[in-house]
Formats: sequence, C-alpha cells, structure tokens
Amino acid sequence: MKDSLWKEVADARKRLEGVAHVTPTFTCSSLDQIAKSSVWFKAENLQRTGSFKFRGAYNALSAMPEDEREKGVITHSSGNHGQALALAAKLLNERAFVIMPETSPAVKREAVAAYGAMVITCEPTQAARKEKTREIIEQTSAVFIDSHDDVHVIAGQATAAVELIEESGPFDILLAPVGGGGLIAGTAIAASHLLDGARVIGCEPAGANDAYRSLAAGERILDFTPQTIADGLRTTLGKLNFEIMQQMVDSIVLVSEEEIVRAMRFVWERMKLIIEPSSAVAVAPLLSGAIGGNGERIGVILSGGNVDLDRFFAPIEKTSAGKD
Amino acid sequence: MKDSLWKEVADARKRLEGVAHVTPTFTCSSLDQIAKSSVWFKAENLQRTGSFKFRGAYNALSAMPEDEREKGVITHSSGNHGQALALAAKLLNERAFVIMPETSPAVKREAVAAYGAMVITCEPTQAARKEKTREIIEQTSAVFIDSHDDVHVIAGQATAAVELIEESGPFDILLAPVGGGGLIAGTAIAASHLLDGARVIGCEPAGANDAYRSLAAGERILDFTPQTIADGLRTTLGKLNFEIMQQMVDSIVLVSEEEIVRAMRFVWERMKLIIEPSSAVAVAPLLSGAIGGNGERIGVILSGGNVDLDRFFAPIEKTSAGKD
Repeated sequence: MKDSLWKEVADARKRLEGVAHVTPTFTCSSLDQIAKSSVWFKAENLQRTGSFKFRGAYNALSAMPEDEREKGVITHSSGNHGQALALAAKLLNERAFVIMPETSPAVKREAVAAYGAMVITCEPTQAARKEKTREIIEQTSAVFIDSHDDVHVIAGQATAAVELIEESGPFDILLAPVGGGGLIAGTAIAASHLLDGARVIGCEPAGANDAYRSLAAGERILDFTPQTIADGLRTTLGKLNFEIMQQMVDSIVLVSEEEIVRAMRFVWERMKLIIEPSSAVAVAPLLSGAIGGNGERIGVILSGGNVDLDRFFAPIEKTSAGKD
Repeated sequence: MKDSLWKEVADARKRLEGVAHVTPTFTCSSLDQIAKSSVWFKAENLQRTGSFKFRGAYNALSAMPEDEREKGVITHSSGNHGQALALAAKLLNERAFVIMPETSPAVKREAVAAYGAMVITCEPTQAARKEKTREIIEQTSAVFIDSHDDVHVIAGQATAAVELIEESGPFDILLAPVGGGGLIAGTAIAASHLLDGARVIGCEPAGANDAYRSLAAGERILDFTPQTIADGLRTTLGKLNFEIMQQMVDSIVLVSEEEIVRAMRFVWERMKLIIEPSSAVAVAPLLSGAIGGNGERIGVILSGGNVDLDRFFAPIEKTSAGKD
C-alpha cells in the first residue's frame, strides 16, 4: 500500500503544480520559547479557498476522466471541502453541488456560493446529509466526492506536508488536526517517505475524540456526538483514512476547548495569522506542554483560516457607517 | 538633503541586519481583480513587536553613543512606537520609559510592559503627554526618542520600502499610511533612490487629515482633533517628516472610516492576515477605486497588526472555560 500511495502523492503534486499555492512557512520565537522546541508552521490558511482542502479536492477532480466529471460533482461538507470542491469545479469548468448543514458559518456558505457552486442546506445530522445527497444525485447524476475517504483527496492533502518537509525539514515530530482523517493520513504518508523515524501525531478535540478512541479500539467508532468549537473536526473517520492511520500515525493527542481557544488567540495575537479553531487544535499541545520540551524540530500544518468575523466587525461597521 | 538621508538609510540597514525581520511580501488575486492592478503587500504586521516601528526605534537607539543611552530612553506613544522602543532598549540592555494615553488599547500597554519598559499613563491629550514626559525626564535624565520626527527613526522605517522594492519592484505607485510621517517619509526616500518616476502616495483618514491640509497649506497644521478608528494615525506631522514629504511625496489620498473598516475586514477575511486599522488605511484606496485601475504595479506597506482582540475572544473564552 505504502508505495502505491506515494505514487498517488507524486501524481497529485504534478496536477497541483501552478494551481495550488505553495504556501509559506512561518516560525514564532515566543512560541519556540514556550514549547522549548523549534517549530515551523505550514500556512495552509493562505491556501486557495482558505484551507488545505483545495489540494485534495482539485486533485480528485482532475484525476477523474473528463466524461465522468461532466455530470457534475457533489459533496457534503461543513464548509472547507465545499469551498475547495466549488473552486476546483470552477477551474475545471464543471458543475458542483454542495450539501451543507444549516449550522455551518455563514461565511463558509457564502464562499461556496461565490465560487459558483449550488449550495443546498440540510439539518446538521449525518443522516440528513446523506439523504439530501442521495436525493440530489438521483436528480442530477452528479458524482460524489468524499471530503476525506478518497485516495486522491488524501494524496492531495499529503502535498502540504511534502512542501513543508522540503522547505524546513527534517522534523522529529509532525502535527496535524484530525477530523475525517484526510490531512493526517496524507501527512503520515509524506513523513513515512521523506523523514526518518519522525513521529506523526494527530491532534483532536477532547470533545470529538473518535480518532483517539478508534485507534485504541482497533475499529472505527462512528456513533458519537461531537461537542467542539472546531467545526471542521466534527466528522467521523474515513475507512481508508483509518487504515492509513493505524499503520502510520504514532498517536493522537487530545486538547480541551479552552486550550483550543487559547491557541487560536495566541496565533492571531502573536503571529498575526487568522486561523480557524480546527487549526488551533494542532497548536494547542505546544502551548500546553503536551508536546515539545526537548528542543525537537516540529512541523505543524495550520489547516485553514475560515472564520466568521461578524462578532468582531459588526459593531465597528455600524459605528463607522454612522460617522461618514 | 537627499544624499545624506540615503546614507542614513544605508547605515540603518546595517544596524538592523539580523535584528529586524525581513518580513515577507504577499499578493492577493481577488484584490488585484478589484483594484485592476498588481499589488504587493509588505507585511510589517509580522515585524518584531507587530509593526514597522521596531525598525526606526532600534536604529535610533543603536545610533546613539553608548554613554548617552545609558541614562535610559523615553518616549510618548499611542502604542506601537512604545513597544518598539521597549524591545529595542531591552535588546541593547537599556532602560525605557513609555508615556501612553489611558485610551490606548490594553493589548498595546501590556505588550510595552512585557518587553520590560516602564509604562506611565496620562490623559489622552498632546499637552498631557508632553508634561508627563518632561516630568519623567527631570527625574531620570532619560533621553527622548521621538516616534517619527527623528532622522534615524525615518531612516529605519525606510528600510521596509527598500526591502519591498528589492524583492518585488519596480513599482509605479507606493502606498503607506500617514500619522506622524515617519513611514511615509522613509518610503519616499527609498522610492526616490530606487524607483524611476514612481508616485509615493500617503494614505490618511478623512477624520485625521492634517497631512493633507498641511501639504495644501504649505505649513504644518498642528491644532486638530483626530476622529478616527486608526489609532496609530492620530499624531501630528513631524517637522523633518513634513520637509521630506513636501519634496518627495506626490499626494495624500483620504479615506472614510467606513472604507477603513471594510479594508481591514477584507485583509482579515481574504488574506488571513491580522492588520490594525491604521494599516487598512493604505488598503482602502485600492478597494474603493481611488487608486489603481490601469494595471499599475503597486507596493503597499501593511504597517502593523496590533489589535485588541477581546471583543472576538472574550465570549468564546467564557464558553470554552465553562465546557471543560
């Protein structure tokens, strides 16, 4: 499996060349001091559509035969995969349908629509998503592209870690958040080929600890109710993702909601980068001392930066409009 | 004057080498489309202490004879120059006193103190600042370092534009916000030596338009009450700054409070960079159509990113603490 996956990553890189941004890497000396480590952050919040998801979605779409994707593509997504698929479809001149829970941040729904995709909302349950998706597929014959349980999606996500390792490696530890498992699986594939003995650690909210429990149990736990601000990590693990994780991910570290918010604020305030709560999940263990402490070289994927900023801006928008 | 100023900039570069960050440059395709131009942003919000001010403060301090700065240094500042001077003094092992208006954002006062400087608050008027400064100088013999009306400060600030031009130039237009005039004067010196026929345009809030009116009148207007969210731009123009601006700055563009807030939100949402309102003043004319429109190559200094984020984080900090 390992070699065929790596071949997929090499193909993904070719397809993404000149299409996805090669995002910059940042360091932060005050964080290094706190974590007693040397940390490099891969800023996928600066990726097209504001998250790493563009890599996987574009790779999956461009790997499809043209006559197949002509029917259009469809997915369900809490936001970032939807935006990613919408832009990928637009760039390849295809139709996209995105099923989104009513509870997803407005900024994410609007962004999907702005890329020209059709947004269809549903109740925020797994069952409602699936039923609505089935309904639209029946009407349109669109092809379903999963947000994470797809070899081309995983291979696309892997390219972020590949770039990070090439630019700033080698690393002793790589950190990435775990939701459906696309990013962590891709990161693990990259590490297993490009790094010698590095630990790949998935970061998960304690309030959505299905990956932690699944790895402990040796089987995917699919029935759980996530309780976390990290809206991108409320998904269940994919089948292929879980298989790759069992083989290549060293461990899962859990972080509290308080730690997530503190890490998010730290990155905004000190690094001046907007990251979303899901990204902060992979920063939190460095601030809490759960990871680091021994001068390790650590790579972190800052997965995305799509946050609803209304709470910050609405009051000053009102004031400033009144003044003019 | 031009050649001696340029010599100061060359000296500043040497002093800042390995001390100040060579900040990265960003582009944004959606902004380019709106502005019908090619725009490069110099991210001085990622500079040490979160703003370009570190360049000038460190240059001024390290240009002083050691026996002079041993008495300590003092300044009054609405925030960013205070942080900058505090860190510069710390790096050079000197004492720093910073007089700050009570109304300056808490995050800025705390940051100054965190760098080891002594923060002394006063009423938010020019008179109160000056009186308090005089008082402390009498007590301590500390040497006053102006935030902008100082050739070494101006030369330090110029290095931001020098780096931007070297990395991404040439440019047809350079934009920078105007407060006391340190950044715009430095930018103009850099442009006059490194660019051929480029226009240097200062960006100013309509509610603090003293530079605009001063250039029109041919003399500095010092008596005005600023009304703007851009807290870094409420200062009056310096004498040397005004002289340089008269010779080297092409024009001043005024922006409304509404345009400032819109530009700030645009940069946060689309570019995922935290910038403060003062920085947004130099982005606003590109979004409003006041500048650009003809495929110009435009360089913009994003001056800083020190914003009080309490309004955004306080509610979720409360919620997340409750959940744990």
